[in-house]
Amino acid sequence: MATPCSSFEVTSTLGAARTGTLTLTHGQVQTPAFMTVGTRGAIRGIEPHEVGEKGAGADIILSNTYHLWERPGHELIGRLGGLHEFMGWHGPILTDSGGYQVFSMRDRIKATEEGVRFRSPLNGDLKWLTPELAVEIQETLGVDVAMAFDECLEHPATRERAKHSTDRTTRWLKRCMAARQHADRTALFGIVQGGMYEDMRIAHAQEIAELDLDGYAIGGLSVGEGHDLMMAMVQATTPHMPAGKVRYLMGVGQPIDIVEAVIRGVDMFDCVLPTRAGRHGTVYTWQGKRNLKIGRYAEDTRVLDPELPNSPANRYSRAYLRYLFKTGELMGKRMATLHNLYFYQELMRQLRQIIASGDEQALQDLRRRARQASGPAPAGS
Amino acid sequence: MATPCSSFEVTSTLGAARTGTLTLTHGQVQTPAFMTVGTRGAIRGIEPHEVGEKGAGADIILSNTYHLWERPGHELIGRLGGLHEFMGWHGPILTDSGGYQVFSMRDRIKATEEGVRFRSPLNGDLKWLTPELAVEIQETLGVDVAMAFDECLEHPATRERAKHSTDRTTRWLKRCMAARQHADRTALFGIVQGGMYEDMRIAHAQEIAELDLDGYAIGGLSVGEGHDLMMAMVQATTPHMPAGKVRYLMGVGQPIDIVEAVIRGVDMFDCVLPTRAGRHGTVYTWQGKRNLKIGRYAEDTRVLDPELPNSPANRYSRAYLRYLFKTGELMGKRMATLHNLYFYQELMRQLRQIIASGDEQALQDLRRRARQASGPAPAGS
Repeated sequence: MATPCSSFEVTSTLGAARTGTLTLTHGQVQTPAFMTVGTRGAIRGIEPHEVGEKGAGADIILSNTYHLWERPGHELIGRLGGLHEFMGWHGPILTDSGGYQVFSMRDRIKATEEGVRFRSPLNGDLKWLTPELAVEIQETLGVDVAMAFDECLEHPATRERAKHSTDRTTRWLKRCMAARQHADRTALFGIVQGGMYEDMRIAHAQEIAELDLDGYAIGGLSVGEGHDLMMAMVQATTPHMPAGKVRYLMGVGQPIDIVEAVIRGVDMFDCVLPTRAGRHGTVYTWQGKRNLKIGRYAEDTRVLDPELPNSPANRYSRAYLRYLFKTGELMGKRMATLHNLYFYQELMRQLRQIIASGDEQALQDLRRRARQASGPAPAGS
Repeated sequence: MATPCSSFEVTSTLGAARTGTLTLTHGQVQTPAFMTVGTRGAIRGIEPHEVGEKGAGADIILSNTYHLWERPGHELIGRLGGLHEFMGWHGPILTDSGGYQVFSMRDRIKATEEGVRFRSPLNGDLKWLTPELAVEIQETLGVDVAMAFDECLEHPATRERAKHSTDRTTRWLKRCMAARQHADRTALFGIVQGGMYEDMRIAHAQEIAELDLDGYAIGGLSVGEGHDLMMAMVQATTPHMPAGKVRYLMGVGQPIDIVEAVIRGVDMFDCVLPTRAGRHGTVYTWQGKRNLKIGRYAEDTRVLDPELPNSPANRYSRAYLRYLFKTGELMGKRMATLHNLYFYQELMRQLRQIIASGDEQALQDLRRRARQASGPAPAGS
């Protein structure tokens, strides 16, 4: 049953797109929302206050259960007052279940009905991750939203494999629900699976909708299936997810993926793209993605993105930012990452504003601009 | 002859210690001053505004001629409006001459009366650095203070070697003076050499004092000679440097080195220690140096230094900062570096205040505290 620590209210719709407010233990999240990823309880050289309302404008961040469990350990974080206190972010935090990281070890794990057995890459210890432990870790971290522990299906997968895996995910979801000790402060989201089979996704969405969770995610996408197939799956699934609950598309994506999914009724996103791309010298701008390492910027004294005037990276020229990457200065990674976080939050702000105003033309215009932002910036721009 | 772009006024003295104001093209520097090192025109993940008056409180930064000459090239920086514009620091900048880096290549260089020939470690090109080129590079960068190109003597060195080298340094200094094209905006400081020979240092200080430069540095120290010998050289030299000109001890040092040198009449310092130590997880605190990687801090919820309340690193616990280093998160390097910059600027602020107030007892107390800060922090502190 949905728990009192979480509530969601849709305030406006535009077609299937919605804007609303998700209320959690540590505050409110305006949706559509993009969760900045702080994998290890830190955001790649960026301080929490630079991510939040006085910085890029994020309401919520995502952190990774698996990494924090391995190091420094959830018990230690719990003893020090929880993840919020530990990392100095006082707004809402959602954690993944740890399943994605564990299943990524593919050949080195043993997945059974009980859970997943693997050897820690950190120290070689034999470890078990189960639905019960995934909930325990997340509740000990004291996060606002725990994700259910699900089986991460390989892609491509046969219909039979997908069915078997999706059924197990449902059984694990029920075990997660039963394992909760702190439903007063940590919400639980279920995850719709079903591989790339529309009917199976619909059936799974309907099945877990019955369980009345705090929110629902779409998992198992952005695994190499491509934009069109991903959108087909989202479009098939969202109408069968509860309209009154928040909908979260996990691990997505490029600006255009986000806009297309919002148009299909998704409310929340997370993706490593803005931080990972930034570390490697790629920045998102409204003119397109820019690889700061290329010679084209060597003497370009313009700011990164004149259409994103509040970006902290705009304190410097493209020429200087390029130079920082060429010479390996940490400041390059930091400024590019910060810029991308501002870009993504600006995209979400515009989506929320357009949906609230009910302006279909503006939405189509933003769709076009997001497509532009997701490809390479043309020469001369 | 001293140039109009630079002036120095001593406002108070306490024994041989002085406090004063150095006025340069891009602003004033309150002395004693510590110059944060931005080797490559960037300060290791720290933005210029975090170093300056709204941040750690530095009035002036130091950048490295050799590195900027190699990449991106002084001509490029000149075309883009100069180093201030390029890196976004609008206060005074001093550059070294490039000699230190070139002479560090030891076996791979050929030093003649003309200058130094070497192969670029970056691209293998055969290059020459001469007094004339060192001045040209620094003037093209548009810095406030250019350092004369001097010969960097090995340590230890025979008396004969030291004399030969010091005489060449004087000849090169005169060539630097003759090569100036922008004395209206870039000041020139000469460098006292003389190895570890007191009489030679005195003679050289007296000789170049005659040349009426904008400021005078003590070079060739902090090369492995140890604190006591370094202080003996400083103590011998400063009385023979012009009292009305600013005195700069190059590449120094630990907090205690700085306080001892100020007591002997030095006004300016630069050192990579706060940035380099920070990158490697060592922070300066009034209780002593702390290696953030050690287990002692794993569950230490205290702030880094309760006696340095304005340090940005004090937003986080020692336990979290340790965790950031253990897990390789960029934010650890950034916060430790930032903390050290705040620590060094706070040390200088206290020195200026104590000298201005003429409080000998406070100066002795700070000397004791700086000694404490330069050693390891005791357990439990």
